[in-house]
Amino acid sequence: MKKIEHIGIAVSSLKNASIIYEKLFGAPAYKEEEVASEGVKTAFFMSGPNKIELLEATNLESPIAKFIAKKGEGIHHIAFEVEDIMVEIARLKNEGFIILNETPKNGADNKLVVFLHPKNTNGVLIELCQEIR
Amino acid sequence: MKKIEHIGIAVSSLKNASIIYEKLFGAPAYKEEEVASEGVKTAFFMSGPNKIELLEATNLESPIAKFIAKKGEGIHHIAFEVEDIMVEIARLKNEGFIILNETPKNGADNKLVVFLHPKNTNGVLIELCQEIR
Repeated sequence: MKKIEHIGIAVSSLKNASIIYEKLFGAPAYKEEEVASEGVKTAFFMSGPNKIELLEATNLESPIAKFIAKKGEGIHHIAFEVEDIMVEIARLKNEGFIILNETPKNGADNKLVVFLHPKNTNGVLIELCQEIR
Repeated sequence: MKKIEHIGIAVSSLKNASIIYEKLFGAPAYKEEEVASEGVKTAFFMSGPNKIELLEATNLESPIAKFIAKKGEGIHHIAFEVEDIMVEIARLKNEGFIILNETPKNGADNKLVVFLHPKNTNGVLIELCQEIR
């Protein structure tokens, strides 16, 4: 776990939320990106070594649509940057964590990503991400 | 907003959660601290330039007890480190954010802290913190 790579925030409207977070950070999103496989549009903001990812669902089957329907807008996940995602998957499985997708997926922002089941991490959805080299 | 200083996670048992997060990070909490004024016991873990703060309520009036009663365990807040907390309070009030305590409070880990009302930040409870010098 090299650092918190980003915090993912589920929002109803990427456009409206981006106006708010631009005011918060005093700077606009540096990137917007759609991840069709996850059914999301994203906008990324910088805070020093960390990022904030706003996520809007693009269809009703999106995990973000389901999250908002159940809990409302709010923090969706924490992503930690790792050096070698396959090594971390093996280490954490061995420690008893449940990996939701053992084969890393292509996420936003040029990353390989896996998620840990929140039932083993005190209700926190944790993402591990590794830059695609 | 210099960086994400820490993520606060509401947990039912600091002892049990610390065992889990020690496995996640591969290292134990570097500090445990009680903040009597907030009704919490905390444990801090490092992840590079960032921290994870586990929070357990010490009484039923604690904001953490109320959070868990309503939503269960999970991510409670994001804290951003700021250079000058009074300057940031003035800037964000001017941008339309609602500051929950305009006079900064003493938080854990030698910090002055204020919180922004989550109704203006897409359901996210945001803390600003400045190291006490």
